[in-house]
Amino acid sequence: MKKLITVIWLCLSAGSAVLAQNNILVFQSDFGLKDGAVSAMKGVAAGISPDIKMYDVTHEIPAYNIWEASYRLAQTASYWPKGTVFVSVVDPGVGTSRKSVVLLTKSGHYFVTPDNGTLTLVAEQLGIQEVREIDEANNRRKNSGESYTFHGRDVYAFTAARLASKVITLDKVGPKLPNEIVSIPYQKPSFSDGKVKGAIPILDIQYGNVWTNIDKQTFNKLGAKTGDQIKVAVFNDQHKVYEGMVTYVNTFGDVQEGDDVGYFNSLLNFSLGINMGSFSEKYKVYSGNEWSLVISK
Amino acid sequence: MKKLITVIWLCLSAGSAVLAQNNILVFQSDFGLKDGAVSAMKGVAAGISPDIKMYDVTHEIPAYNIWEASYRLAQTASYWPKGTVFVSVVDPGVGTSRKSVVLLTKSGHYFVTPDNGTLTLVAEQLGIQEVREIDEANNRRKNSGESYTFHGRDVYAFTAARLASKVITLDKVGPKLPNEIVSIPYQKPSFSDGKVKGAIPILDIQYGNVWTNIDKQTFNKLGAKTGDQIKVAVFNDQHKVYEGMVTYVNTFGDVQEGDDVGYFNSLLNFSLGINMGSFSEKYKVYSGNEWSLVISK
Amino acid sequence: MKKLITVIWLCLSAGSAVLAQNNILVFQSDFGLKDGAVSAMKGVAAGISPDIKMYDVTHEIPAYNIWEASYRLAQTASYWPKGTVFVSVVDPGVGTSRKSVVLLTKSGHYFVTPDNGTLTLVAEQLGIQEVREIDEANNRRKNSGESYTFHGRDVYAFTAARLASKVITLDKVGPKLPNEIVSIPYQKPSFSDGKVKGAIPILDIQYGNVWTNIDKQTFNKLGAKTGDQIKVAVFNDQHKVYEGMVTYVNTFGDVQEGDDVGYFNSLLNFSLGINMGSFSEKYKVYSGNEWSLVISK
Repeated sequence: MKKLITVIWLCLSAGSAVLAQNNILVFQSDFGLKDGAVSAMKGVAAGISPDIKMYDVTHEIPAYNIWEASYRLAQTASYWPKGTVFVSVVDPGVGTSRKSVVLLTKSGHYFVTPDNGTLTLVAEQLGIQEVREIDEANNRRKNSGESYTFHGRDVYAFTAARLASKVITLDKVGPKLPNEIVSIPYQKPSFSDGKVKGAIPILDIQYGNVWTNIDKQTFNKLGAKTGDQIKVAVFNDQHKVYEGMVTYVNTFGDVQEGDDVGYFNSLLNFSLGINMGSFSEKYKVYSGNEWSLVISK
Repeated sequence: MKKLITVIWLCLSAGSAVLAQNNILVFQSDFGLKDGAVSAMKGVAAGISPDIKMYDVTHEIPAYNIWEASYRLAQTASYWPKGTVFVSVVDPGVGTSRKSVVLLTKSGHYFVTPDNGTLTLVAEQLGIQEVREIDEANNRRKNSGESYTFHGRDVYAFTAARLASKVITLDKVGPKLPNEIVSIPYQKPSFSDGKVKGAIPILDIQYGNVWTNIDKQTFNKLGAKTGDQIKVAVFNDQHKVYEGMVTYVNTFGDVQEGDDVGYFNSLLNFSLGINMGSFSEKYKVYSGNEWSLVISK
Repeated sequence: MKKLITVIWLCLSAGSAVLAQNNILVFQSDFGLKDGAVSAMKGVAAGISPDIKMYDVTHEIPAYNIWEASYRLAQTASYWPKGTVFVSVVDPGVGTSRKSVVLLTKSGHYFVTPDNGTLTLVAEQLGIQEVREIDEANNRRKNSGESYTFHGRDVYAFTAARLASKVITLDKVGPKLPNEIVSIPYQKPSFSDGKVKGAIPILDIQYGNVWTNIDKQTFNKLGAKTGDQIKVAVFNDQHKVYEGMVTYVNTFGDVQEGDDVGYFNSLLNFSLGINMGSFSEKYKVYSGNEWSLVISK
């Protein structure tokens, strides 16, 4: 009888192994790389297990910018193998009552973070499998009780490293919460009256491109094809900041240097750019919830 | 008899194994990340052993700033496991007679660096167990004799990688030196006449917070408790740069946006900040040996 | 007979093993570290094999600057062990007809990149052993067909990771090309009439030093020895930007703070600097193909 139970238990384990952690730990924060804060987090993780492989999303999230933290996780998580553990520390409410949680998505990725909106986009795109609140009685670095400001190192990196290296399983993180996370509201893409509307969640800062949240399916309702000129208006709240025609292209190489283009970026979202230039700088178009655009033929 | 000696030798080895290297190599420099200098150091290390795990403190130490190099090592080292080897290359005196050394601290961490003040704070905080001078006859990359400017790559990274991967033991680094290192003088925290005095060794640059070297024990002699208003004066040499009242808090979340606060940072040192703002920028308070402050109730 | 063939085959394998990949994958790009693009590339690579060790040259190549991409590879590659795979993504022509290639150098290093000039200097310095065009039918991440702009992630990082981890061998990359790569023309160092001429390919940006392409052998034809004052003129096209005397030194420590010096950098190329200052900023000397210099005694 005991044997049978063991067999059943092993089968269940094998099933859940699809979501098992894989020793990969990926860090994100708004700490920057100029001081030792990121290094201290990695040192704590290295002390948990010598087998952890550590990587980064970025540590250049603008200070306190939870929306961008959410965006960067969503931009990258699905490219990492199932079982990868992400730890994101953008935490303007540190020391207040925001919860510290671990989200397991349906895609098999783990996210260790304050539940302050950081999970908005990964929860939506990858699906919520399970949410646990971190029980700091068990999941906090020893002798760290006096520091109020370094949850990143003493709770999040510590817990994430223990999870990534299988020192603990998800159920040892703390109590199960309802399958909900704190979510930041944002405007979704839509089509009506021959116009596509959308938001500008983020800039492609390195090149000055303007990334919208308009997916290809919504865009295609316009009936535009590559090579067409399309009309774009960009608004900051109600104020029109830019209006003009751009060429809809597959790639910047299809037009001359200096030409304004619309194209689909690596996330397959409609974007605005200038071949060898910065659309954002030239037209003073930036990103955030108050920015929107309307596209028509 | 031979067996007995072997047993004794094994026991001694087991004892010293507490301080044995662990294949972890942590880099620090003022090289920045825009060119290939850091990569060349890591390439040299990767060529020593495929098992080395490489991490960084930061490579954004301001050029030639030995004090900040010392500070960043002290800020992070103790979070890394015993046996970790640090290599720090901030070396304005490269090519002069400053010694190249390896410091083993009582805490079991190794530091490979020019002995130019970089070791000031780790030596003080972690204790000096042993100091060796690097013998370049044995510990220098082959065919590197012509380059005067890349001790970082050809001596420090090379030696640190050989040490981290146990290709050499500490005694093979070179001759033992007295248990002393070159130390930068700095003002220590003190309490008298109802006032706490201290220095401002560093800024928390990402957020604009001002970190002092005043520990909690010294601060507590003031008798202030969280929620109290406390008086702070900041000086650059004799010139008073700032005077004002700040709220002593556990965490920024305890006050309104824009409020000035005093709090204990992740190193448990007294710090000045503004909730969602930059104390340093607003009040033109910066860091270095010429900056000091006085706190009273 | 079969045994004999096996033995011969093993011998040949052992021979080629000198050039075998070593699980080390080194990334370079102009993506910067502020968004998730580098992380997505590394996630794809981590999904190929858990054994890959990932490092970076830099991700701060100025946008679209193929020359600097070429320079940074040449500056670092030879310090990495044979068998290391480099992937460089600076790709202003993405989506156009430039070829995607893998270069194996005679030194045993692999380079995965668009063939747009990026390989100029490593091909010249390390020698061309073999060039293969990447066959995207076999070497492209699944379900990535719709994205025109992320060859970096879906083709280059994907192929480089499969190569580094020995999932594929070089011959599985795609068809063999002639032993040629696209090369950027540039001025080589020369000596005549008692003058050494050369170019300024790059700045040592962190310190403001000016690096030329004048090697020691060419410089030595001047007959200058350390301690000598030498005359330097720097030109932007035909316009003389700087003319002055500098002290030829082994190391900055040989002169006073603020002194102008000429010295040999870590690549053993003649360079201009100021002890504790920025030669580039002070004299407005920058780098690129239009910059040249003339040195005399």
